[in-house]
Amino acid sequence: MEKVMIIGVAGGSASGKSTIVEKLRDSFKNDIVVLCHDYYYKSHSGLLFEERMKLNYDHPNAFDTDHMIEDLKKLIDGQEILRPVYDYTIHDRSSDKVLVQPKKVIVVDGILVLENEKLRDLMDIKIYVDADDDERLIRRIQRDVLERGRTLESVVAQYRNTVKPMHDQFVAPSKRYADIIIPFGGRNKIAIDMLMENIKKSI
Amino acid sequence: MEKVMIIGVAGGSASGKSTIVEKLRDSFKNDIVVLCHDYYYKSHSGLLFEERMKLNYDHPNAFDTDHMIEDLKKLIDGQEILRPVYDYTIHDRSSDKVLVQPKKVIVVDGILVLENEKLRDLMDIKIYVDADDDERLIRRIQRDVLERGRTLESVVAQYRNTVKPMHDQFVAPSKRYADIIIPFGGRNKIAIDMLMENIKKSI
Repeated sequence: MEKVMIIGVAGGSASGKSTIVEKLRDSFKNDIVVLCHDYYYKSHSGLLFEERMKLNYDHPNAFDTDHMIEDLKKLIDGQEILRPVYDYTIHDRSSDKVLVQPKKVIVVDGILVLENEKLRDLMDIKIYVDADDDERLIRRIQRDVLERGRTLESVVAQYRNTVKPMHDQFVAPSKRYADIIIPFGGRNKIAIDMLMENIKKSI
Repeated sequence: MEKVMIIGVAGGSASGKSTIVEKLRDSFKNDIVVLCHDYYYKSHSGLLFEERMKLNYDHPNAFDTDHMIEDLKKLIDGQEILRPVYDYTIHDRSSDKVLVQPKKVIVVDGILVLENEKLRDLMDIKIYVDADDDERLIRRIQRDVLERGRTLESVVAQYRNTVKPMHDQFVAPSKRYADIIIPFGGRNKIAIDMLMENIKKSI
């Protein structure tokens, strides 16, 4: 089997990471598979819903990264996987699974995918999507308050309690491992085109 | 005439910028021309050698950027230019000129090439080569003391008096205009390969 290309896309919350990943998905449709770190949030079925809501979802320990690495290695070897599904409405892992076929290009997406050394070592291109902290906060407020109907108070509390400290402690320092830093996330046509050109070469 | 591709490569002193530019030059030989901002240092023939040595060569005003922009526009239009030559041994513009033929790819190289808006607006891809300040200082000391035989004292004095303040005031803030940020400069094979792939496409 041909060499699979693994592209890691990390960066802060609301940095424009997902917009880039969406553009890659739209462009390469059947040749690409996106594996989000969020799919691998740990199960917390032993906790009450209220307790699960208070968990720190931005800490590396919130993820079952070993499971993700196992799945990624299978995909690299050309095997299909049954990946977990995380259900945000219940703040817990769903009982569903999704069948994922191996593809030539695998995008590994998540705020912390460059933080874990073993995961990082599987990547051919490590990308960090960068945006100013205040710009990210504005986008997060817009998304959570305007689109998701949350209160401004709860968004700011979560931002101060977990999003910001985890960003400063784990996400921002992982920029150091990037091969390429893309500023302005999803609005950066030139960087995205450049990335796409490189993917085209390997599919 | 075909569209010319203009690539700006900025970044701090000793960031690995020149290594990247050298690799592009080695790889694309006759299809690429490199225009360094340093060629366009202003002439200071009215000053004594000792006075010229004390000038601040890291400030945007040290360069005749308008002249560079004029030359760049001519190259874009398919015209040849006679570019100036700067002679470091006398710290002044040389009386020589170099004939430069237009090429499909033009690399505009210099610590401050993203600082000037008019220059920036001519570029198709704006690259900022990034490296930690301490790492850049180490390389600068190695280069100037070990390779160029300068005293450590004079290198540190120049660093503190002009290199660092100009970097903080003009070079680092220009990172904001980059389409792509390349960390680790010349040692970053993945980013350089990605850039080369994109240049290949346009020649």
